[in-house]
Amino acid sequence: MVKIYGDPISGNCYKIKLLLELTDQPYEWVDVDVVAKETRTDEFLKMNLNGRVPLAEIAPDTYLPESNAILYYLAQNTDYWPEDSLAQARVLQWMFFEQYSHEPFIATVRYWIYFLKAEEEFKDEINKRRASGYAALDIMEQVLSESVFFGERPSIADISLYAYTHVAHEGHFSLDDYPCVRDWLKRIEELPNYVGMVG
Amino acid sequence: MVKIYGDPISGNCYKIKLLLELTDQPYEWVDVDVVAKETRTDEFLKMNLNGRVPLAEIAPDTYLPESNAILYYLAQNTDYWPEDSLAQARVLQWMFFEQYSHEPFIATVRYWIYFLKAEEEFKDEINKRRASGYAALDIMEQVLSESVFFGERPSIADISLYAYTHVAHEGHFSLDDYPCVRDWLKRIEELPNYVGMVG
Repeated sequence: MVKIYGDPISGNCYKIKLLLELTDQPYEWVDVDVVAKETRTDEFLKMNLNGRVPLAEIAPDTYLPESNAILYYLAQNTDYWPEDSLAQARVLQWMFFEQYSHEPFIATVRYWIYFLKAEEEFKDEINKRRASGYAALDIMEQVLSESVFFGERPSIADISLYAYTHVAHEGHFSLDDYPCVRDWLKRIEELPNYVGMVG
Repeated sequence: MVKIYGDPISGNCYKIKLLLELTDQPYEWVDVDVVAKETRTDEFLKMNLNGRVPLAEIAPDTYLPESNAILYYLAQNTDYWPEDSLAQARVLQWMFFEQYSHEPFIATVRYWIYFLKAEEEFKDEINKRRASGYAALDIMEQVLSESVFFGERPSIADISLYAYTHVAHEGHFSLDDYPCVRDWLKRIEELPNYVGMVG
């Protein structure tokens, strides 16, 4: 059974949990506290040189890091990974978009504001990242105005983008001007076996 | 034949050219000048909402953005994409590492210093990103001290990481303390059909 090392407050970790639940795969979850720097201990760094969660132990002592690479691995032979190679490349396109153009802005601002409670300390950085976060939401809104999911059917691209979008308000991003994004969030939440981020 | 919209000075674009040359695939290249903001014209944004290169036109009016998603698509059925699903996930692991933990530091600092000639203007940002760039190189050095490539054989993970690592000095990153990284760069450059970044 796959073992997931993850922090329950991390959207990157939640992605994995959501996929495993949606596809009804058994797993073991090991809590790791990022704020308490449990990802930077010698013991943890032996499992993942890059000192980050989520980390999947897919067989004893065989570790796979990077949330979207874990999604790829665990989605094989499920409905969340398409069969056609162009459709597959599009799923990856949106997962790379998520890590490069979405997560560093929407997730990082949320982390500073909601978890570190350090909005004042990071004010300048937050202001810089705010515009890029909204730019990512603008692109998502345009795509979702013409498509029900990020592809013909729900995939790990949707799971990846859902993780931090559905808690964007915790970083004080407003979705008021993003009706198509809001409808898409609801569609994800109506998928069979959906689970929320906490519990 | 695939058409690549790319800027010759961009490592993300060079990745695609390098793969196509290494695998002896025909392609057409269309120069797009990022510094002159040619990726932000209305015409370009119609092809890629996110206004970035590289962009692959894989069939007339069928566009695929995101350098590493393009690599995935073009590497199918070549030696640069492994067959085993764990090996595939590891290739993606390193490509997500590249976009999240490497490119925003090593490529962005190079862009400010080497292309915009704006080292003074971006001094504070450069200082912040310098340490993260070296942290990425530290991880690469550790991996390459035990492995010849980022996997059992060269893959698109190596191509992806090679693109900005081999020009890191243009952003004033020194590889003096990274002998395994330097040896790996040489191994890539010895692959049959290798081409450099310019010409």
